[in-house]
Amino acid sequence: MIVIKKKTLNKQNNFGNKGQELESSINDSNKFYNENNIAYIDKKPTPIKVSEVKGKLITKAFYEKQSTLDYSGIYKKRYIEFEAKSTKSTTSLPYENIKRHQFEHLDKIYKLGGISFLLIEFSVLNEYYVLSYEQIMKYYSKSLQKSIKREFILKYGYKIKQGYHPRLYYLDCVDKLLK
Amino acid sequence: MIVIKKKTLNKQNNFGNKGQELESSINDSNKFYNENNIAYIDKKPTPIKVSEVKGKLITKAFYEKQSTLDYSGIYKKRYIEFEAKSTKSTTSLPYENIKRHQFEHLDKIYKLGGISFLLIEFSVLNEYYVLSYEQIMKYYSKSLQKSIKREFILKYGYKIKQGYHPRLYYLDCVDKLLK
Repeated sequence: MIVIKKKTLNKQNNFGNKGQELESSINDSNKFYNENNIAYIDKKPTPIKVSEVKGKLITKAFYEKQSTLDYSGIYKKRYIEFEAKSTKSTTSLPYENIKRHQFEHLDKIYKLGGISFLLIEFSVLNEYYVLSYEQIMKYYSKSLQKSIKREFILKYGYKIKQGYHPRLYYLDCVDKLLK
Repeated sequence: MIVIKKKTLNKQNNFGNKGQELESSINDSNKFYNENNIAYIDKKPTPIKVSEVKGKLITKAFYEKQSTLDYSGIYKKRYIEFEAKSTKSTTSLPYENIKRHQFEHLDKIYKLGGISFLLIEFSVLNEYYVLSYEQIMKYYSKSLQKSIKREFILKYGYKIKQGYHPRLYYLDCVDKLLK
């Protein structure tokens, strides 16, 4: 998940590490969906190259580049994969937040018949959206703009209902995508 | 993937680390399926808990328990997840090779409508099989035996055709499961 760094955030406002909060909200929701046998969606571990081990302790290792997206799993028999993005902007999600290989992966999953989307948080507004890759691609390829505007997300995305547990009812939005 | 350790294997025969060979064969097959836009199936990274980082170098970390299976992905819109198991036995796959949480996870995916199975290698015989969770469960729950017999696998599983690239045509067997 690519988000503004904690230090930068703390300097500028009091919202703390919104990226980690988003991750924690999604993990909570996935736990709820799993416990209720609605879906199984998992955060992928970051791949790490281990180069030295002493007993059970890893003493030398490196982070490897993640080639896929943040979350993947199964919902209504279908394969689901999505990337979670958080922005402090109140008007748009900058494209620089989304890496090229992430777009390519969204595209691959879409073409194989999977459900691929972005889960977007506007942290200052406390708003969450599901925006399908299909809609992003239509917009992205036609536009020279440097971000996905909030108006576009309001029009083509689905707003996520918030609660206590699950924190984010994001599969309700996926139901709408499937229609 | 749970396999006999390299040292033990090298002492006992000349087959080398069959577990790693199986992994490499599956990775090669997945690469083929991915490049030909047939499926996207990925080996899950082993989760590692990082507790100390110096710059870009991880200097202290621990392996965490894998709660899911070896491989997961998308094929024909469906979610697919499987565990690869290698045995030197020529007559059966010992159940001790399959951990309880792995059975539970196969069960979860099956109940959510996913495709869940074991990919079994009889390394000495150079034979590979796809055995669906559904069949394993029928057998497992009825039997007090300590292994899945090869005869059972021959009867209820599907033998995987071998080639150069892909090494293992295991999705042909999945097609049979889907019928």
